[in-house]
Amino acid sequence: MLANTENIVKKINLTLSETSFGNKPKELYEPIDYMLALGGKRMRPLISVLSYLIFKEDYEKAIKPSLSLEVFHNFTLMHDDIMDQAPLRRGQATVHEKWNPNTAILSGDVMLVKAYDLLLDLEPEVLKQVVTLFNQCATHVCEGQQLDMLFEKRNDVTVEEYLEMIRLKTAVLLGFSMQLGGIIAGASKKDTAYLYQAGVAIGIGFQLKDDLLDTFGDPAKFGKKVGGDISSNKKTFLLIRAVELAKGKHAQELTKLLTEKDSPQKIKGVTDLYNKLGVANEANIQIQKYFNSGLGSLAKVKGSIFRRGQLKQFISQLIERES
Amino acid sequence: MLANTENIVKKINLTLSETSFGNKPKELYEPIDYMLALGGKRMRPLISVLSYLIFKEDYEKAIKPSLSLEVFHNFTLMHDDIMDQAPLRRGQATVHEKWNPNTAILSGDVMLVKAYDLLLDLEPEVLKQVVTLFNQCATHVCEGQQLDMLFEKRNDVTVEEYLEMIRLKTAVLLGFSMQLGGIIAGASKKDTAYLYQAGVAIGIGFQLKDDLLDTFGDPAKFGKKVGGDISSNKKTFLLIRAVELAKGKHAQELTKLLTEKDSPQKIKGVTDLYNKLGVANEANIQIQKYFNSGLGSLAKVKGSIFRRGQLKQFISQLIERES
Repeated sequence: MLANTENIVKKINLTLSETSFGNKPKELYEPIDYMLALGGKRMRPLISVLSYLIFKEDYEKAIKPSLSLEVFHNFTLMHDDIMDQAPLRRGQATVHEKWNPNTAILSGDVMLVKAYDLLLDLEPEVLKQVVTLFNQCATHVCEGQQLDMLFEKRNDVTVEEYLEMIRLKTAVLLGFSMQLGGIIAGASKKDTAYLYQAGVAIGIGFQLKDDLLDTFGDPAKFGKKVGGDISSNKKTFLLIRAVELAKGKHAQELTKLLTEKDSPQKIKGVTDLYNKLGVANEANIQIQKYFNSGLGSLAKVKGSIFRRGQLKQFISQLIERES
Repeated sequence: MLANTENIVKKINLTLSETSFGNKPKELYEPIDYMLALGGKRMRPLISVLSYLIFKEDYEKAIKPSLSLEVFHNFTLMHDDIMDQAPLRRGQATVHEKWNPNTAILSGDVMLVKAYDLLLDLEPEVLKQVVTLFNQCATHVCEGQQLDMLFEKRNDVTVEEYLEMIRLKTAVLLGFSMQLGGIIAGASKKDTAYLYQAGVAIGIGFQLKDDLLDTFGDPAKFGKKVGGDISSNKKTFLLIRAVELAKGKHAQELTKLLTEKDSPQKIKGVTDLYNKLGVANEANIQIQKYFNSGLGSLAKVKGSIFRRGQLKQFISQLIERES
């Protein structure tokens, strides 16, 4: 029986649970196990393995190096949560809250080292190529996080700047995830470049969808509190476009709402303005554009049509998702 | 003319100044340049290059990968300074003070990535071996820092535990530094293992010497304030041994001094007790023991006797140093 998405995620979680990152001192390693046990869709290793399957069927050997993506992603979350002073992650206390900021710094550091460790089963030539790309990706993610922090203090962030920030902070890791699967499978440079392009475009679409769900998601299905971005005046695509589009009375209203403290009225007021200004519709158009661009790049990849279709189906679920 | 230590350090500093870690956003990269410009003896890349020279003369190719050690070391300092809330580093404001803790976290993260980046000139087979050992070393350094923080809250730390902590936090990086030079030069497994052993022993001796100078250094020559460890009740070899050895009146006096706030009287009182209890002498014996053990391992390494002597001479300066 051919592996399906569900089987692969099971295998990913099994391998992750069998991986020991270390034991002593426990204060260093417990936060890593805690963070990884908080769950998540394992989206990054999954799309790496799905990308591998386009070229080869023996996907088991792709699992461990693909886990590097999950560990790296969780390292960035652990450190970002300190920087953002976030109390919760997936409904549970963040590491710096449950332990303390020093523990979150140091456990995060060792997680980054462990992400490199998971790549060490790769053949030397492949390893060199992968570490080179991993470093580029990791550098971009840090640059994206720095831009995100800088944008908090600015009121003149443009859509272009915002898209570049989410490209660096979120999208390149999805690009690298797809590329990694291809590289491990020995795909051609052309194909792995298409996979990267596809992943980056899909990653931007994915983040824009995230922005949209944060305001317009169904509270019954959305995992976090709907309106959280509005509460914190987060400069998302929606807010940046609303500020650009609002004129006269709308502009005054928006300016006033942005100076208000968090309240249900504030969330309702900004959401109503978003509706009047049509920014959700604009976001949907952008999301569709980026997903289509990503799927277009994916369509150029040579390999199993069935497996490419499976990856396409998974990506389509990301467009349609409601949480 | 054969390269001497001074020439090599010049070359290391030149290569470091020519290395660009990145530009945008400047808030991410300026702290890296600042940190690396604070100076330092470049001891780790230097002993890597000196180890390389035991086997081969064309040491220029060892410089860039050896810089990885310096960047990694400075990454650990940047993050340790946050954890220790240290205001100063080499007499200048620490990164988290000059900028803020978030900047120090994120710039440190990208520095760790850049440390891996500097290794990428190595041949694939060598790179795989080096990254494997780099990861082990980096993991140990994080474990050592975690132990150091845990020891702050304990009053029953033993000498054995302390020696294990400084082995992990400080010494293994010197071990890896010597090993790295040997590996890049293509030395045998046996020789690189001896280099590692030598570096670890010397690293422990080096840290014990640091402890000793912190209390007994000449204020005119020692870079930091003499007595800093006593001020902060830091559990060094000297204090741990003093607590173990002090009986009766001495024990009462030490306990009282440890509860006192920082003052010149406290520093003088504890230093006097150290003298009465003979712990400085004990430390000197340990330092000599570790350095001799390190030099013994170094003596087993095959290769240029002249170059081995040069490395030995550099290490001897570390024993004799007064700052």
